[in-house]
Amino acid sequence: MSFETEDYPGVAAKAPDETLGFRFNHTMLRVKDPEASLAFYSHVLGMRVLRRLDFEEMEFSLYFLARPDPEEAIPEDRAGRTRWTFSQRGILELTHNWGTENDPDAHYHDGNSEPQGFGHICFSVPDLDKAIAWFDANDVEYVKRPEQGKMKDIAFIKDPDGYWIEIVQADRMARIGG
Amino acid sequence: MSFETEDYPGVAAKAPDETLGFRFNHTMLRVKDPEASLAFYSHVLGMRVLRRLDFEEMEFSLYFLARPDPEEAIPEDRAGRTRWTFSQRGILELTHNWGTENDPDAHYHDGNSEPQGFGHICFSVPDLDKAIAWFDANDVEYVKRPEQGKMKDIAFIKDPDGYWIEIVQADRMARIGG
Repeated sequence: MSFETEDYPGVAAKAPDETLGFRFNHTMLRVKDPEASLAFYSHVLGMRVLRRLDFEEMEFSLYFLARPDPEEAIPEDRAGRTRWTFSQRGILELTHNWGTENDPDAHYHDGNSEPQGFGHICFSVPDLDKAIAWFDANDVEYVKRPEQGKMKDIAFIKDPDGYWIEIVQADRMARIGG
Repeated sequence: MSFETEDYPGVAAKAPDETLGFRFNHTMLRVKDPEASLAFYSHVLGMRVLRRLDFEEMEFSLYFLARPDPEEAIPEDRAGRTRWTFSQRGILELTHNWGTENDPDAHYHDGNSEPQGFGHICFSVPDLDKAIAWFDANDVEYVKRPEQGKMKDIAFIKDPDGYWIEIVQADRMARIGG
Protein backbone atom coordinates (compact mmCIF):
# COMPACT_ATOMS: atom_id res chain seq x y z
CA MET A 1 0.00 0.00 0.00
CA SER A 2 1.14 3.53 -0.58
CA PHE A 3 -0.39 6.37 1.40
CA GLU A 4 0.29 10.06 1.15
CA THR A 5 0.77 9.88 4.89
CA GLU A 6 4.04 8.03 4.48
CA ASP A 7 5.70 11.29 3.47
CA TYR A 8 5.34 12.56 7.03
CA PRO A 9 8.66 13.21 8.75
CA GLY A 10 10.00 10.14 10.46
CA VAL A 11 7.66 7.58 8.86
CA ALA A 12 9.35 4.45 7.49
CA ALA A 13 8.54 3.89 3.80
CA LYS A 14 7.56 0.28 4.52
CA ALA A 15 7.09 -1.93 7.53
CA PRO A 16 10.39 -3.74 8.21
CA ASP A 17 10.25 -7.51 7.65
CA GLU A 18 11.37 -7.97 11.25
CA THR A 19 7.98 -6.65 12.40
CA LEU A 20 5.90 -9.16 10.45
CA GLY A 21 3.20 -10.61 12.68
CA PHE A 22 3.50 -7.90 15.32
CA ARG A 23 0.01 -7.11 16.63
CA PHE A 24 -1.24 -4.33 18.86
CA ASN A 25 -2.75 -6.75 21.35
CA HIS A 26 -4.00 -4.85 24.38
CA THR A 27 -4.26 -1.74 26.51
CA MET A 28 -3.99 -1.92 30.29
CA LEU A 29 -5.95 0.26 32.70
CA ARG A 30 -5.90 0.02 36.50
CA VAL A 31 -9.36 -0.21 38.08
CA LYS A 32 -10.46 0.43 41.67
CA ASP A 33 -13.36 -2.03 41.87
CA PRO A 34 -13.35 -5.01 39.49
CA GLU A 35 -17.00 -5.82 40.17
CA ALA A 36 -18.07 -2.37 38.94
CA SER A 37 -15.68 -2.45 35.97
CA LEU A 38 -16.59 -5.99 34.91
CA ALA A 39 -20.30 -5.12 35.13
CA PHE A 40 -19.75 -2.04 32.96
CA TYR A 41 -17.54 -3.61 30.31
CA SER A 42 -19.47 -6.90 30.09
CA HIS A 43 -22.95 -5.42 30.11
CA VAL A 44 -22.77 -1.88 28.66
CA LEU A 45 -20.02 -2.65 26.11
CA GLY A 46 -20.67 -6.40 25.72
CA MET A 47 -17.13 -7.56 26.44
CA ARG A 48 -16.32 -11.10 27.56
CA VAL A 49 -13.78 -11.97 30.26
CA LEU A 50 -11.30 -14.26 28.52
CA ARG A 51 -8.82 -14.84 31.29
CA ARG A 52 -8.17 -13.82 34.86
CA LEU A 53 -4.71 -14.14 36.33
CA ASP A 54 -4.15 -13.81 40.08
CA PHE A 55 -0.79 -12.89 41.54
CA GLU A 56 -1.22 -13.72 45.22
CA GLU A 57 2.26 -12.79 46.34
CA MET A 58 1.98 -9.31 44.82
CA GLU A 59 -1.75 -9.02 45.62
CA PHE A 60 -3.16 -8.10 42.26
CA SER A 61 -5.35 -9.67 39.58
CA LEU A 62 -5.50 -9.15 35.83
CA TYR A 63 -8.65 -9.47 33.73
CA PHE A 64 -8.41 -9.75 29.93
CA LEU A 65 -11.55 -8.80 28.01
CA ALA A 66 -12.61 -8.87 24.37
CA ARG A 67 -15.73 -7.96 22.42
CA PRO A 68 -15.69 -10.82 19.88
CA ASP A 69 -18.06 -10.98 16.94
CA PRO A 70 -20.53 -13.92 17.15
CA GLU A 71 -18.73 -15.88 14.42
CA GLU A 72 -15.39 -15.78 16.22
CA ALA A 73 -14.67 -19.12 17.86
CA ILE A 74 -12.83 -18.64 21.13
CA PRO A 75 -11.12 -21.77 22.45
CA GLU A 76 -12.82 -23.17 25.56
CA ASP A 77 -9.71 -24.75 27.08
CA ARG A 78 -7.57 -22.49 29.23
CA ALA A 79 -4.26 -22.84 27.39
CA GLY A 80 -5.91 -22.40 24.00
CA ARG A 81 -7.90 -19.45 25.21
CA THR A 82 -4.79 -17.82 26.68
CA ARG A 83 -2.92 -18.28 23.39
CA TRP A 84 -5.95 -16.82 21.54
CA THR A 85 -6.15 -13.88 23.94
CA PHE A 86 -2.54 -12.87 23.34
CA SER A 87 -2.71 -13.14 19.57
CA GLN A 88 -5.74 -10.89 19.03
CA ARG A 89 -6.12 -7.18 18.55
CA GLY A 90 -8.42 -5.07 20.68
CA ILE A 91 -8.03 -6.75 24.06
CA LEU A 92 -8.60 -4.71 27.22
CA GLU A 93 -6.58 -5.61 30.31
CA LEU A 94 -7.90 -4.43 33.68
CA THR A 95 -5.54 -4.50 36.65
CA HIS A 96 -6.97 -4.75 40.15
CA ASN A 97 -4.64 -4.05 43.06
CA TRP A 98 -6.37 -5.88 45.90
CA GLY A 99 -8.07 -3.70 48.48
CA THR A 100 -8.54 -0.53 46.43
CA GLU A 101 -12.28 -1.24 46.23
CA ASN A 102 -12.54 -0.75 50.00
CA ASP A 103 -10.21 2.26 50.24
CA PRO A 104 -12.19 5.51 50.09
CA ASP A 105 -9.02 7.41 49.12
CA ALA A 106 -8.15 5.12 46.22
CA HIS A 107 -8.90 6.45 42.78
CA TYR A 108 -7.13 6.40 39.44
CA HIS A 109 -6.04 9.23 37.17
CA ASP A 110 -7.80 9.41 33.79
CA GLY A 111 -4.87 11.10 32.01
CA ASN A 112 -6.85 14.11 30.79
CA SER A 113 -6.25 16.49 33.68
CA GLU A 114 -2.65 17.27 34.64
CA PRO A 115 -0.36 15.41 34.41
CA GLN A 116 -1.62 14.47 30.94
CA GLY A 117 -0.60 11.42 28.93
CA PHE A 118 -3.01 8.64 27.98
CA GLY A 119 -6.25 10.15 26.68
CA HIS A 120 -8.94 7.57 26.04
CA ILE A 121 -9.98 4.28 24.55
CA CYS A 122 -12.53 4.17 21.73
CA PHE A 123 -15.32 1.83 20.72
CA SER A 124 -16.67 1.79 17.20
CA VAL A 125 -20.40 1.03 17.03
CA PRO A 126 -22.64 0.12 14.08
CA ASP A 127 -25.20 2.83 14.88
CA LEU A 128 -24.28 5.80 17.08
CA ASP A 129 -27.87 6.85 17.79
CA LYS A 130 -28.85 3.36 18.94
CA ALA A 131 -25.69 3.12 21.04
CA ILE A 132 -26.53 6.43 22.76
CA ALA A 133 -30.05 5.15 23.53
CA TRP A 134 -28.47 2.01 25.03
CA PHE A 135 -26.06 4.05 27.15
CA ASP A 136 -28.90 6.29 28.32
CA ALA A 137 -30.97 3.22 29.27
CA ASN A 138 -28.01 2.14 31.41
CA ASP A 139 -27.45 5.54 33.05
CA VAL A 140 -23.97 5.87 31.59
CA GLU A 141 -22.12 9.07 32.45
CA TYR A 142 -20.97 11.29 29.60
CA VAL A 143 -17.95 13.51 29.07
CA LYS A 144 -19.66 14.75 25.92
CA ARG A 145 -22.94 13.75 24.34
CA PRO A 146 -23.05 13.79 20.52
CA GLU A 147 -25.17 16.90 20.50
CA GLN A 148 -22.73 18.85 22.69
CA GLY A 149 -19.90 20.81 21.09
CA LYS A 150 -18.95 20.90 17.42
CA MET A 151 -18.33 17.20 16.82
CA LYS A 152 -21.87 15.86 16.48
CA ASP A 153 -20.70 12.44 15.27
CA ILE A 154 -18.65 11.65 18.36
CA ALA A 155 -19.53 10.96 21.99
CA PHE A 156 -17.36 10.38 25.03
CA ILE A 157 -18.63 8.30 27.92
CA LYS A 158 -16.93 7.45 31.22
CA ASP A 159 -16.18 4.05 32.68
CA PRO A 160 -16.57 3.45 36.45
CA ASP A 161 -13.07 4.83 37.15
CA GLY A 162 -13.71 7.91 35.03
CA TYR A 163 -11.58 6.78 32.04
CA TRP A 164 -12.85 8.35 28.84
CA ILE A 165 -14.31 6.10 26.14
CA GLU A 166 -14.88 7.66 22.73
CA ILE A 167 -17.84 6.30 20.77
CA VAL A 168 -17.79 6.55 16.97
CA GLN A 169 -19.65 5.13 13.99
CA ALA A 170 -17.19 4.34 11.19
CA ASP A 171 -19.20 5.65 8.23
CA ARG A 172 -19.96 8.89 10.03
CA MET A 173 -16.22 9.33 10.65
CA ALA A 174 -15.61 9.02 6.90
CA ARG A 175 -17.79 12.10 6.59
CA ILE A 176 -15.47 13.96 8.97
CA GLY A 177 -12.30 12.64 7.40
CA GLY A 178 -13.21 13.77 3.89
CA MET B 1 -19.34 -19.65 24.66
CA SER B 2 -19.36 -20.39 28.37
CA PHE B 3 -16.34 -19.57 30.46
CA GLU B 4 -15.75 -20.17 34.12
CA THR B 5 -14.80 -16.52 34.27
CA GLU B 6 -18.41 -15.48 33.79
CA ASP B 7 -19.10 -16.37 37.39
CA TYR B 8 -17.05 -13.40 38.55
CA PRO B 9 -19.03 -10.78 40.44
CA GLY B 10 -20.60 -8.26 38.13
CA VAL B 11 -20.03 -10.09 34.85
CA ALA B 12 -23.06 -10.28 32.55
CA ALA B 13 -23.95 -13.86 31.61
CA LYS B 14 -24.06 -12.94 27.93
CA ALA B 15 -23.28 -9.94 25.79
CA PRO B 16 -26.47 -7.89 25.37
CA ASP B 17 -27.84 -7.82 21.81
CA GLU B 18 -27.60 -4.04 21.91
CA THR B 19 -23.79 -4.33 21.90
CA LEU B 20 -23.59 -6.43 18.73
CA GLY B 21 -20.91 -5.03 16.44
CA PHE B 22 -19.25 -2.93 19.13
CA ARG B 23 -15.49 -3.02 18.60
CA PHE B 24 -12.63 -1.83 20.80
CA ASN B 25 -11.21 0.37 18.05
CA HIS B 26 -8.35 2.44 19.41
CA THR B 27 -6.27 3.80 22.26
CA MET B 28 -5.14 7.43 22.32
CA LEU B 29 -1.80 8.63 23.66
CA ARG B 30 -0.49 12.20 23.58
CA VAL B 31 3.00 12.52 22.12
CA LYS B 32 5.51 15.36 22.41
CA ASP B 33 7.26 14.98 19.04
CA PRO B 34 5.35 13.28 16.21
CA GLU B 35 8.48 12.82 14.11
CA ALA B 36 10.10 10.74 16.87
CA SER B 37 6.90 8.81 17.60
CA LEU B 38 6.09 8.12 13.95
CA ALA B 39 9.65 6.92 13.37
CA PHE B 40 9.42 4.60 16.37
CA TYR B 41 5.98 3.15 15.66
CA SER B 42 6.46 2.83 11.88
CA HIS B 43 9.97 1.42 11.96
CA VAL B 44 10.46 -0.44 15.25
CA LEU B 45 6.87 -1.76 15.48
CA GLY B 46 6.03 -1.72 11.77
CA MET B 47 2.85 0.35 12.05
CA ARG B 48 1.38 2.26 9.12
CA VAL B 49 -0.08 5.75 9.32
CA LEU B 50 -3.66 5.36 8.10
CA ARG B 51 -4.96 8.88 8.58
CA ARG B 52 -3.84 12.23 9.86
CA LEU B 53 -6.38 14.81 10.91
CA ASP B 54 -5.35 18.42 11.53
CA PHE B 55 -7.38 20.75 13.71
CA GLU B 56 -5.90 24.15 12.89
CA GLU B 57 -8.18 26.21 15.10
CA MET B 58 -7.32 24.12 18.16
CA GLU B 59 -3.70 23.57 17.05
CA PHE B 60 -3.45 19.81 17.27
CA SER B 61 -3.09 16.86 14.91
CA LEU B 62 -4.20 13.25 15.22
CA TYR B 63 -2.39 10.29 13.68
CA PHE B 64 -4.12 6.91 13.39
CA LEU B 65 -1.80 3.92 13.04
CA ALA B 66 -2.29 0.19 12.46
CA ARG B 67 -0.01 -2.81 12.08
CA PRO B 68 -1.97 -4.69 9.38
CA ASP B 69 -1.06 -8.19 8.26
CA PRO B 70 0.14 -8.35 4.62
CA GLU B 71 -3.09 -9.95 3.40
CA GLU B 72 -5.26 -7.16 4.80
CA ALA B 73 -6.38 -4.84 2.02
CA ILE B 74 -6.59 -1.27 3.25
CA PRO B 75 -8.62 1.07 1.03
CA GLU B 76 -6.46 3.59 -0.81
CA ASP B 77 -9.09 6.32 -1.06
CA ARG B 78 -9.37 8.66 1.90
CA ALA B 79 -13.04 8.13 2.75
CA GLY B 80 -12.73 4.36 2.43
CA ARG B 81 -9.57 4.32 4.49
CA THR B 82 -11.17 6.45 7.19
CA ARG B 83 -14.15 4.10 7.36
CA TRP B 84 -11.75 1.13 7.52
CA THR B 85 -9.69 2.81 10.25
CA PHE B 86 -12.70 3.29 12.52
CA SER B 87 -14.06 -0.22 12.07
CA GLN B 88 -10.89 -2.11 13.02
CA ARG B 89 -9.49 -3.30 16.29
CA GLY B 90 -5.99 -2.47 17.44
CA ILE B 91 -5.64 1.08 16.14
CA LEU B 92 -3.26 3.49 17.91
CA GLU B 93 -4.14 7.18 17.92
CA LEU B 94 -1.34 9.65 18.62
CA THR B 95 -2.30 13.22 19.53
CA HIS B 96 0.18 16.02 18.86
CA ASN B 97 -0.50 19.38 20.47
CA TRP B 98 1.44 21.73 18.21
CA GLY B 99 4.62 23.18 19.67
CA THR B 100 5.32 20.58 22.37
CA GLU B 101 8.23 19.25 20.30
CA ASN B 102 10.05 22.58 20.77
CA ASP B 103 9.15 23.08 24.43
CA PRO B 104 11.90 21.72 26.70
CA ASP B 105 9.45 21.58 29.63
CA ALA B 106 6.82 19.58 27.74
CA HIS B 107 6.62 15.91 28.59
CA TYR B 108 3.81 13.43 29.11
CA HIS B 109 2.98 11.22 32.06
CA ASP B 110 3.29 7.47 31.49
CA GLY B 111 0.68 6.54 34.10
CA ASN B 112 2.94 4.22 36.11
CA SER B 113 4.30 6.71 38.62
CA GLU B 114 1.82 8.71 40.72
CA PRO B 115 -0.87 9.55 39.86
CA GLN B 116 -1.39 6.08 38.39
CA GLY B 117 -4.07 5.06 35.90
CA PHE B 118 -3.28 3.84 32.39
CA GLY B 119 -0.47 1.29 32.53
CA HIS B 120 0.75 0.22 29.11
CA ILE B 121 -0.06 -0.96 25.64
CA CYS B 122 1.08 -4.41 24.50
CA PHE B 123 2.29 -5.90 21.25
CA SER B 124 2.13 -9.61 20.60
CA VAL B 125 5.04 -10.91 18.49
CA PRO B 126 5.54 -14.24 16.72
CA ASP B 127 9.00 -14.82 18.29
CA LEU B 128 10.02 -12.97 21.45
CA ASP B 129 13.74 -13.70 21.10
CA LYS B 130 13.85 -12.37 17.54
CA ALA B 131 11.83 -9.31 18.56
CA ILE B 132 14.30 -8.56 21.36
CA ALA B 133 17.20 -8.82 18.89
CA TRP B 134 15.35 -6.37 16.60
CA PHE B 135 14.74 -3.93 19.47
CA ASP B 136 18.41 -4.19 20.50
CA ALA B 137 19.51 -3.50 16.92
CA ASN B 138 17.37 -0.34 17.10
CA ASP B 139 18.67 0.80 20.51
CA VAL B 140 15.22 0.57 22.06
CA GLU B 141 15.03 1.45 25.74
CA TYR B 142 13.71 -1.17 28.15
CA VAL B 143 11.66 -0.99 31.31
CA LYS B 144 12.37 -4.72 31.73
CA ARG B 145 14.29 -7.11 29.52
CA PRO B 146 12.93 -10.69 29.41
CA GLU B 147 15.84 -11.97 31.50
CA GLN B 148 15.20 -9.43 34.27
CA GLY B 149 12.83 -10.29 37.13
CA LYS B 150 10.66 -13.38 37.45
CA MET B 151 8.65 -13.10 34.24
CA LYS B 152 11.13 -14.39 31.65
CA ASP B 153 8.50 -14.55 28.89
CA ILE B 154 7.62 -10.86 29.02
CA ALA B 155 9.51 -7.68 28.16
CA PHE B 156 8.58 -4.04 28.54
CA ILE B 157 10.05 -1.43 26.21
CA LYS B 158 9.55 2.35 26.16
CA ASP B 159 8.31 4.51 23.32
CA PRO B 160 9.85 7.98 22.74
CA ASP B 161 7.55 9.57 25.37
CA GLY B 162 8.34 6.89 27.92
CA TYR B 163 5.01 5.04 27.58
CA TRP B 164 5.44 1.37 28.46
CA ILE B 165 4.91 -1.25 25.74
CA GLU B 166 4.64 -4.86 26.87
CA ILE B 167 6.00 -7.45 24.45
CA VAL B 168 4.62 -11.00 24.58
CA GLN B 169 4.63 -14.15 22.49
CA ALA B 170 1.19 -15.79 22.59
CA ASP B 171 2.26 -19.42 22.95
CA ARG B 172 4.71 -18.56 25.72
CA MET B 173 1.84 -16.81 27.55
CA ALA B 174 -0.17 -20.04 27.37
CA ARG B 175 2.65 -21.57 29.42
CA ILE B 176 2.16 -18.89 32.07
CA GLY B 177 -1.63 -19.07 31.97
CA GLY B 178 -1.78 -22.85 32.57
